[in-house]
Amino acid sequence: MPSYTAPTADIQFVLQDLLGVADRDLPGYADLDADFTRQVLEEAGRLATGVLAPLNAVGDRQGCRLENGAVRTPDGFREAYRQVCDGGWIGLDCDPDYGGQGMPYVLNCAVGEMFVSANMAFNMYQGLSHGAISAIQAHGSPEQKAAYLPKMIAGDWSGTMNLTEPHCGTDLGLIRTKAEPQPDGSYSLTGQKIWISAGEHDLTENIIHLVLAKIPGGPDGVKGISLFLVPKFLVNDDGSLGERNGVTCGGLEEKMGIHGNATCVMHYDGAKGFLIGEMHKGMRAMFTMMNEARLGVGLQGLAQGAVAYQNAAAFARDRLQGRDVTGARNPGGPADPILVHPDVRRGLMMQKSFVEGGRALVLWGASLIDAAHAGDAEAEALISLLTPVIKGFLTDKGFETTVLAQQTLGGSGFTREWGLEQFVRDARITMIYEGTNGVQSLDLVARKLPASGGKAMMAFLEMVKTVCKENDREEMAAFTAPLKAGSKDLQEAAMFFMQHGMKDPNAALAGSYDFMHLFGHVALGLVWARIAAVALRKLDAGEGDPAFWQAKLATGRFHMARQMPATGLHLARIRSGAAPVMDLEAEAF
Amino acid sequence: MPSYTAPTADIQFVLQDLLGVADRDLPGYADLDADFTRQVLEEAGRLATGVLAPLNAVGDRQGCRLENGAVRTPDGFREAYRQVCDGGWIGLDCDPDYGGQGMPYVLNCAVGEMFVSANMAFNMYQGLSHGAISAIQAHGSPEQKAAYLPKMIAGDWSGTMNLTEPHCGTDLGLIRTKAEPQPDGSYSLTGQKIWISAGEHDLTENIIHLVLAKIPGGPDGVKGISLFLVPKFLVNDDGSLGERNGVTCGGLEEKMGIHGNATCVMHYDGAKGFLIGEMHKGMRAMFTMMNEARLGVGLQGLAQGAVAYQNAAAFARDRLQGRDVTGARNPGGPADPILVHPDVRRGLMMQKSFVEGGRALVLWGASLIDAAHAGDAEAEALISLLTPVIKGFLTDKGFETTVLAQQTLGGSGFTREWGLEQFVRDARITMIYEGTNGVQSLDLVARKLPASGGKAMMAFLEMVKTVCKENDREEMAAFTAPLKAGSKDLQEAAMFFMQHGMKDPNAALAGSYDFMHLFGHVALGLVWARIAAVALRKLDAGEGDPAFWQAKLATGRFHMARQMPATGLHLARIRSGAAPVMDLEAEAF
Repeated sequence: MPSYTAPTADIQFVLQDLLGVADRDLPGYADLDADFTRQVLEEAGRLATGVLAPLNAVGDRQGCRLENGAVRTPDGFREAYRQVCDGGWIGLDCDPDYGGQGMPYVLNCAVGEMFVSANMAFNMYQGLSHGAISAIQAHGSPEQKAAYLPKMIAGDWSGTMNLTEPHCGTDLGLIRTKAEPQPDGSYSLTGQKIWISAGEHDLTENIIHLVLAKIPGGPDGVKGISLFLVPKFLVNDDGSLGERNGVTCGGLEEKMGIHGNATCVMHYDGAKGFLIGEMHKGMRAMFTMMNEARLGVGLQGLAQGAVAYQNAAAFARDRLQGRDVTGARNPGGPADPILVHPDVRRGLMMQKSFVEGGRALVLWGASLIDAAHAGDAEAEALISLLTPVIKGFLTDKGFETTVLAQQTLGGSGFTREWGLEQFVRDARITMIYEGTNGVQSLDLVARKLPASGGKAMMAFLEMVKTVCKENDREEMAAFTAPLKAGSKDLQEAAMFFMQHGMKDPNAALAGSYDFMHLFGHVALGLVWARIAAVALRKLDAGEGDPAFWQAKLATGRFHMARQMPATGLHLARIRSGAAPVMDLEAEAF
Repeated sequence: MPSYTAPTADIQFVLQDLLGVADRDLPGYADLDADFTRQVLEEAGRLATGVLAPLNAVGDRQGCRLENGAVRTPDGFREAYRQVCDGGWIGLDCDPDYGGQGMPYVLNCAVGEMFVSANMAFNMYQGLSHGAISAIQAHGSPEQKAAYLPKMIAGDWSGTMNLTEPHCGTDLGLIRTKAEPQPDGSYSLTGQKIWISAGEHDLTENIIHLVLAKIPGGPDGVKGISLFLVPKFLVNDDGSLGERNGVTCGGLEEKMGIHGNATCVMHYDGAKGFLIGEMHKGMRAMFTMMNEARLGVGLQGLAQGAVAYQNAAAFARDRLQGRDVTGARNPGGPADPILVHPDVRRGLMMQKSFVEGGRALVLWGASLIDAAHAGDAEAEALISLLTPVIKGFLTDKGFETTVLAQQTLGGSGFTREWGLEQFVRDARITMIYEGTNGVQSLDLVARKLPASGGKAMMAFLEMVKTVCKENDREEMAAFTAPLKAGSKDLQEAAMFFMQHGMKDPNAALAGSYDFMHLFGHVALGLVWARIAAVALRKLDAGEGDPAFWQAKLATGRFHMARQMPATGLHLARIRSGAAPVMDLEAEAF
């Protein structure tokens, strides 16, 4: 069985020392002093390690069962869900007017990492509710908010997002689910949705489905899509549950991982639905929550990498095989711990440097979302640019990290018993859902990069320059020199797209994925330079544990020396243009 | 359900046009004219697609069951195994004196790719037998060969390799299984072995275990290991089966993939065993088969990538989402096939260029093994150098290819129904067994590279030079220029190790994995340059289908433009030396 230890100290470091949340002039941030965030993290950590983590393998093995239209979640999920609700975790960053705790989103993400590391499939029930709550909060009428949010924020009801249909996922313009207007102002929804996470389950007394559908007679394509709220049980005026609505679970998907979460086929047979927001503006309503939802998936990738790394490091400390080539480290034992072998360390350093850098990147992103919500236009532009990078790069690398961790265990990594293989299987979905990583790269290159004449990208590059300029002491050269080189590659790649993208869009699109990774490496490099600067300041000031700061510096130097040079490879690929990718005849595949 | 089409034409191309097997002066190669190899491949292809492939998902879902010490393989495996035996496939390259077909190893690998693509877990029963047959053939006494080989080559009996114990896998010097000499010249074996593939099953009437054990009083460590033959049922002098031996299956491992193959815990309780080869020379006996066994695992990685790619390409041709940015390709339909999107093509080109290049690399390697067996010392040196690259690089990239193929399918790739996720789970083990890929890289850098003063590496680099020199026509520049650059990086990395490895072994070991990948890219680059040269010659001569040759050129250009630049990244990492990997205190992991 794998173990999980809540990384409270490292998250505290990111929140307090790196992001300085307590000193930021943002709504709710004044509450985030070090004592408070530590208490919250410790409380969440206890729940994650004591309640959620032990159910992770249980959920994987049992999966969910569909019996007479009802879905049974794995043993223990109901009780654990109750504890999550009782702790107020569902509504941690929700509106206090409806029972939420009103905390900033950054704290929700910090807690979320622990919950996802402990049990990703379980956490998805809560995660989907959070998305639905955000949508209703942003676009629902006052009456809708009053009717649904309190129960959802309390966790008594859960929520879902219904987008995909059998013939369309990415290309939502093709959806066929239709919503016929009814005399009472409601709509009658008919159609089939697939891959609906948490679409049906036994954790809550009601499920509030948010559904994309087309009102007959509206515009073609994505411009004719509207967003509807479809409760499993209709809600009476007094808030009590009324009759069962015409929405049912028609089947559960068998899949590679996240077995503890029910992935449902949903049938809408004249189900009563209520329009959320404006008619035909359903896609826009979805897009307003996109940054948050996609950052949340990036966080999942990171969180699976984080727990996998912990277990790989523990194994490498314990497992005795071979001898240190420079002299035995455990001469009294039959062999040395495998941690002495350079190649084992290489794998672990890749894992550790990604996990700590990625954690800082995603929490920085969350703080930008908080700033954007508070009206900061620059933060809004920057997080919009960074969102596809955080989603695409962190999930690719998060998955890679789980594979690396599995490899650290050798044959044990392939067995169920050690549990690493579950992290690999669970992490795999993060590269696919909420827009595949290919779609993220398309969003980055075709939409986010050129937005406002590339202003956000210029602001990012300026930020890199400032960090390099402000940190010109000798010990920082190992950080700033690779960061400058990577940033130069990023700039040249962006220029390549500007020069070629207009006359040959395929030249840009053929390089979009490499651009997303190039950007990801530079973003992590920027984060590591900032971490190093803090560590050196703390060492100078004699604050905290010197070993903690030295470890940060050593881990960061690994990232800069070993991972940053990847920017050159990505740039070379981008510069090769469209021909290598497009030349082959379609028939020859 | 995924599909499988035997890639007969492409394998024929590699055997006949690229390797020119029919014209090689090697034992058995004179038989390998184009008609003969085509017939063999077509026959094998029918078995693979018609019999083995349909059982792949069955094996994955049912797995093996242990009931009262007996293992039941999945439904259909027994009948399919009988067909494999009846076709003479088990002994395709085995000694005709014992009933084998006497074909070269290269043909065995060509056929093997198909069988592994169709059903890797099933093929492992046969693969383990093959390893045991080779060991007995190479090291058994004439009496042992006569007693065991005919039944094993006919497939009536199968074989296994027993190395790993709970406390040791890589570090075999630590094994505890002991073999006590008996008055009759046999040995009594006692101990526990784990992760024994095909250790117990219902496909054959007897199982011949080859077991590493220590004879008490022998030298410590690996120098005291001997190799024993331990039959499940003892064999009477007349060849009939005698009493049940003291070897039993104590449990089946639950694992991430290859569920159709029984991974057994084996208990030896005073089991009667017979020494194979010399006392205390068990490791040497193992090593003589190492190149073959490791190349076989590289082939598995490739084969899983190959079948995954086929399914991804088929999906991309069929699935309609979005429009070609340069103009609709399917204006009559609701959307264009996703094959029009540059990023989808990028993923497919990565898959296709790896599969076709890797296929050529592994079959070239197999022909080197044939040459080495025939006494060619240069071929022996070269394949010894290439073996860890073929095993480590092709399995890393083979797994990556299955993940890329899964990604091509988007959400469908995560479902059981489409079957891509099984290829990912099955391919994963190839990076681990037969020596983890980290161990391969150690073997490459610490043993193979410095062997005979680096002679084999110099020969490889010379080979690259010759190919570049012989192909100086303009159309070849897209191949030779990147190949030269990659080869220069490879040479510089090797020099870095020579300069630093002696005084700081960790500086070489910290770069071993990157060196293996650097080498792998150059090896594939060399292979693609050769393929391109053949394609251009064929086009000039007007031989064959021009579209086939044009596709080879386009696919190769992708590899050269997009994959070869990775050598620079690997060199940069190698040059960063030991510090980034070794600096972090052990306590800080």
